[in-house]
Amino acid sequence: MKRMDEDMPFLLQYEHVAWYEDGRVRILDRRVYPTEVRFVECTAYHEVVQAIADMVTQSAGPYTAVGMGMALAAYEVREKGKTEQIAFLRQAAHDLAHARPTTANRYGIITEHCAQVAEAALEAGADPVEAIVEATVESLNRRYGTMQIVGDYLADLIPNRGTILTQCFGETIVGTVMRAARRTGKDFRVFCAETRPYLQGARLTASCFAQMGFDTTVITDNMVAYAMEREGIDLFTSAADTIARDGHIANKIGTFQLAILAKHFGIPYFVTGVPDGDKQGAEDIVIEMRDPEQVLSYRGIPNTVPGVKAIYPSFDVVPPHLISGVVTDQGVFVPDALRHYFDREPKTFY
Amino acid sequence: MKRMDEDMPFLLQYEHVAWYEDGRVRILDRRVYPTEVRFVECTAYHEVVQAIADMVTQSAGPYTAVGMGMALAAYEVREKGKTEQIAFLRQAAHDLAHARPTTANRYGIITEHCAQVAEAALEAGADPVEAIVEATVESLNRRYGTMQIVGDYLADLIPNRGTILTQCFGETIVGTVMRAARRTGKDFRVFCAETRPYLQGARLTASCFAQMGFDTTVITDNMVAYAMEREGIDLFTSAADTIARDGHIANKIGTFQLAILAKHFGIPYFVTGVPDGDKQGAEDIVIEMRDPEQVLSYRGIPNTVPGVKAIYPSFDVVPPHLISGVVTDQGVFVPDALRHYFDREPKTFY
Repeated sequence: MKRMDEDMPFLLQYEHVAWYEDGRVRILDRRVYPTEVRFVECTAYHEVVQAIADMVTQSAGPYTAVGMGMALAAYEVREKGKTEQIAFLRQAAHDLAHARPTTANRYGIITEHCAQVAEAALEAGADPVEAIVEATVESLNRRYGTMQIVGDYLADLIPNRGTILTQCFGETIVGTVMRAARRTGKDFRVFCAETRPYLQGARLTASCFAQMGFDTTVITDNMVAYAMEREGIDLFTSAADTIARDGHIANKIGTFQLAILAKHFGIPYFVTGVPDGDKQGAEDIVIEMRDPEQVLSYRGIPNTVPGVKAIYPSFDVVPPHLISGVVTDQGVFVPDALRHYFDREPKTFY
Repeated sequence: MKRMDEDMPFLLQYEHVAWYEDGRVRILDRRVYPTEVRFVECTAYHEVVQAIADMVTQSAGPYTAVGMGMALAAYEVREKGKTEQIAFLRQAAHDLAHARPTTANRYGIITEHCAQVAEAALEAGADPVEAIVEATVESLNRRYGTMQIVGDYLADLIPNRGTILTQCFGETIVGTVMRAARRTGKDFRVFCAETRPYLQGARLTASCFAQMGFDTTVITDNMVAYAMEREGIDLFTSAADTIARDGHIANKIGTFQLAILAKHFGIPYFVTGVPDGDKQGAEDIVIEMRDPEQVLSYRGIPNTVPGVKAIYPSFDVVPPHLISGVVTDQGVFVPDALRHYFDREPKTFY
């Protein structure tokens, strides 16, 4: 299996995202990285579902995890008859796809493909587990290949020796924009909003950029306006968990206010990714509400007194008028004209 | 000593803020409250300086702590001659005033007053320690008296059964607006942005409001736009560490972006407090830069890899055009007309 992750930082190495081997899936626990490097081990696919729901892995991590979870499902049912195996894999494909609601469409494309690959392997008398693992790695390579085009376009938009701001962790774009910058000799400073409650900006994004030699600065989520006014931010960029046809996007909670602040300060905001053909607009975006306990505590330490409530919307929605451009594998689209992305047959992405 | 804190929640009881007794000052450690109720004990005034610099107490807490610190200084030097005592107290007044730069003017008014009270006591053959403690309690009562007028004006601006958003912890306004609401039978919901890195919004403000029976919800600092769009926020309000004559204010980092977001959503922003006559405008505001280590970690747990940098501006500055009104003890001022506050002789506040 050829792998396209060789020049990537630790976090983005395929086997550090999620990996199937010998009847188990190991998933790097991104909730504690890099303070601790710890893997969650799953011996049944429904544990992979739970791990994704618990955000053991996030960003593009679940795309790999659901694939490896399908391999595990195939392993679990290996001694049954073909019909039973296929039924079990269909169920696994459904359950893994629905581990989190906002990106169920994306997960579903992968698990559906894995189920088909397994079925074909079974028909051919080949090993469905191996076939699924290979299909998952191919899917990862395909995604990196497509996202490299996006990363190249984004790198092109960043002024040399400029400063970008981002938040949360969009793993493939982080990897590919760094690769593009290194290839073209472009350098830039990175400001990372830490992204409570899980601090993916501080823990994951800042770690990757720093490990690849970029000048990296973490700010708390309430320092954004200060940094935009006084630290020379040239560009705000984020990934997206959904890019709808009408130019609305959903991304990690906080993206909406960063987009408003960028507009206030006249800083362009570029969202990156491959649009979701099956989502027409904001009305098709489901915002996952997570356990508010995560907001009331940090790593298990409660922050306030009993009786205080919290909300934990996992994502928010940014309307097109706050977005300067949607950076895709077909170039940079004006959000209001994003539907033209679909004038051409989109690349298979998942 | 009459005390005006009797109907206040735990945090605002005078002896839980900072208290001198028998040669020591006990300061509630607001960095860990309410997870832990722990006091820092100081047996020399320079330890009080350090405690304020370390943010053991914050908001209006240092106004009390510097007074009690002056009592401790008087105790430390009690066995020396009068001239030496006065010189020592002058030094203590200076050192305590400069524990933190942004509010050195406010601390200085209190320590100067305490030094004068001590000198008068020494002249009269009275106990300077006792005189300073009494002066500090009087100063607290005076502040609560003045701030109650501010709290009444603010409560009047909040729609009944409405929802307010605040962040960090403005202790006297939190106390007095709750008292005003209770007196007039007004009820409202409170959203508290948690306010990284020390989470004063979650730990202190939310605790006070919840303990007094208000419907209280914590959000992380990146959920503000989401909450403004979807949770029916009627009004954003904050205290201020500086209110300059030209309508610029400085307050806890994050206030600036909340003001921008409020403007974006058409939500009024009311800042509360007593203007600083000695500050003409933004150019007189010193923003304290604190140890960036606090941003890179939480309660000692590092969040990212070595080599990642951070910034930690303790405050930011909000320009008048983002402020709907400055709520003072003389009424609600349009920020651009705030200089008229000084047309009348201001109340003695510290």
